[in-house]
Amino acid sequence: MNLRIEDFIRGARCVLACSHLRPDGDAIGSLLAVGWALDQLGKAHTLACPNPVPPNFHFLPGWERITQKLAPTYDYDLVIALDTGALGRFERLGEVIEHLEVPILVIDHHTTNTRFGTVNWVEPEVAATAEMLFSLLQRLGLQLDETVATYLLTGIITDTQGFRTSNTSPGTVEIVGELLRAGAPLATISDRALNRRSLSALRLWAAVLPGVQCRDHIVWGEIPLSMRLASGYTGGDDADLVEFLATVEETRAAAIFYEREDGTVKVSLRSRPGTDVAEVAQQLGGGGHPQAAGATVEGPLEAARRRVLALLEQRLLGVG
Amino acid sequence: MNLRIEDFIRGARCVLACSHLRPDGDAIGSLLAVGWALDQLGKAHTLACPNPVPPNFHFLPGWERITQKLAPTYDYDLVIALDTGALGRFERLGEVIEHLEVPILVIDHHTTNTRFGTVNWVEPEVAATAEMLFSLLQRLGLQLDETVATYLLTGIITDTQGFRTSNTSPGTVEIVGELLRAGAPLATISDRALNRRSLSALRLWAAVLPGVQCRDHIVWGEIPLSMRLASGYTGGDDADLVEFLATVEETRAAAIFYEREDGTVKVSLRSRPGTDVAEVAQQLGGGGHPQAAGATVEGPLEAARRRVLALLEQRLLGVG
Repeated sequence: MNLRIEDFIRGARCVLACSHLRPDGDAIGSLLAVGWALDQLGKAHTLACPNPVPPNFHFLPGWERITQKLAPTYDYDLVIALDTGALGRFERLGEVIEHLEVPILVIDHHTTNTRFGTVNWVEPEVAATAEMLFSLLQRLGLQLDETVATYLLTGIITDTQGFRTSNTSPGTVEIVGELLRAGAPLATISDRALNRRSLSALRLWAAVLPGVQCRDHIVWGEIPLSMRLASGYTGGDDADLVEFLATVEETRAAAIFYEREDGTVKVSLRSRPGTDVAEVAQQLGGGGHPQAAGATVEGPLEAARRRVLALLEQRLLGVG
Repeated sequence: MNLRIEDFIRGARCVLACSHLRPDGDAIGSLLAVGWALDQLGKAHTLACPNPVPPNFHFLPGWERITQKLAPTYDYDLVIALDTGALGRFERLGEVIEHLEVPILVIDHHTTNTRFGTVNWVEPEVAATAEMLFSLLQRLGLQLDETVATYLLTGIITDTQGFRTSNTSPGTVEIVGELLRAGAPLATISDRALNRRSLSALRLWAAVLPGVQCRDHIVWGEIPLSMRLASGYTGGDDADLVEFLATVEETRAAAIFYEREDGTVKVSLRSRPGTDVAEVAQQLGGGGHPQAAGATVEGPLEAARRRVLALLEQRLLGVG
């Protein structure tokens, strides 16, 4: 399989590399790392993602190369789908990809990956897609420099929440050591990618936390649209509130309900090892990792909350 | 210097190892690691600390060995002072140490260390005292096992806030790799030491955040005694609120003012590289690291706040 992946890449002339909607550090870092590799190999390419690069990743050199729109004339002979569990997570780029009718190479670490590629390299036990790319770049015979090491370390740091997730392996740390030796600035990356929040995010936290509830080892909070608008927060996500709720002792699962403009509710789920929220998210039409998953469900907020809490309670009781 | 340290330890018969008041993971982890080493070397010893071991470190095997009281008959011929910048930070244990009249071996990484030992091994650029102990154990010829690797990794993880501080070096990560290979459970340590908060801590956050203010690149919040009592939080600290405030973009310094029962105010300071809050803390009679420091100042809360903000503003304007 791995050999075939390298062959696909070496054989390509013009590559479209994509990563998922609402990109995180692993999506952006992996995309830029693949762009770097294709540059080294002298392959024409486009880096694409359905949504703009979040400001906290603007410290990554070349982030402006990631486009949301594809040129009207396509000349691609290979698609590389990065860190993306299903074609739908490319949004309208997914339709473009389907119409290209060229091989799709999937490189991903999501448990819920649907194997939508021509070749699917999926390693659910690996902490980050960037970690898989580290070995790919080695197998392609490319010598890491500071730039690509920064891209890869950004992916690993963000997907492991700073090496805190249970899939952070000795192998992960070994790769981190190699990336540091190649010049990746660990503290800067942590600071930029994990350690920055806007004042409006802080206002959102101040509004959400007083209403947080806890029952049966589940802790949850809600972000009604009106509350988010009042806070001025425009990040399009829960501002990491679910990560915070997941730290509460004796809880086994945490949820944030985020009311969107269109009335749907984005549900972000986190859990401690032993409780699989990826399966709950899948039941809701979403996906993710066993300890971090999400879905979009129908509103209103209260109905969404009742539906999700019922599923979580079933799961915690072991009857899900 | 380093050779002399090993000689001191090898030459000792009965050792008192101490770490600082309100112990963090590096204080506890370092203390237990030294206890482990002295066991290996067959030296009698006591592990002491002015305050009890916080519950989030009760997963460390043998934490119960750390005592707050010394036996009335002392037989120590060496004191090892760990992770402690000044004798005063041992509280009343410091007086006992002074009266022992035996050599004091200081092993510490605080910039503000006063060199109060007979031998002072102080490396301010190193991320954690546990990182220094890693090399000491090697030089003592001791083979790491899972237990001591867990102690050392706990110290490194907590003092670097999960490898996020700017003093997390390639050397730190190399040591982390060695500790993982020796069996230290990284994800468990992160989860226990960094990722757990009580529900009362969450209530404290919910009470403090709505009152947080931001001015001139300084963000601060206050914990009046009444607020803390109402939340039920008994952790004796700011429940990591200052770490959160320090993540707000465009701020260069963060402060939490914590009103104690006796009317004094504990001030916790954090900053981004470029702003040295250790010097501010020293002006207030406290100490710490350039990016993380603290002090206890006279109340009432409002007077403490005004005094500290004035010093921080001077420092940010470069006239401190």
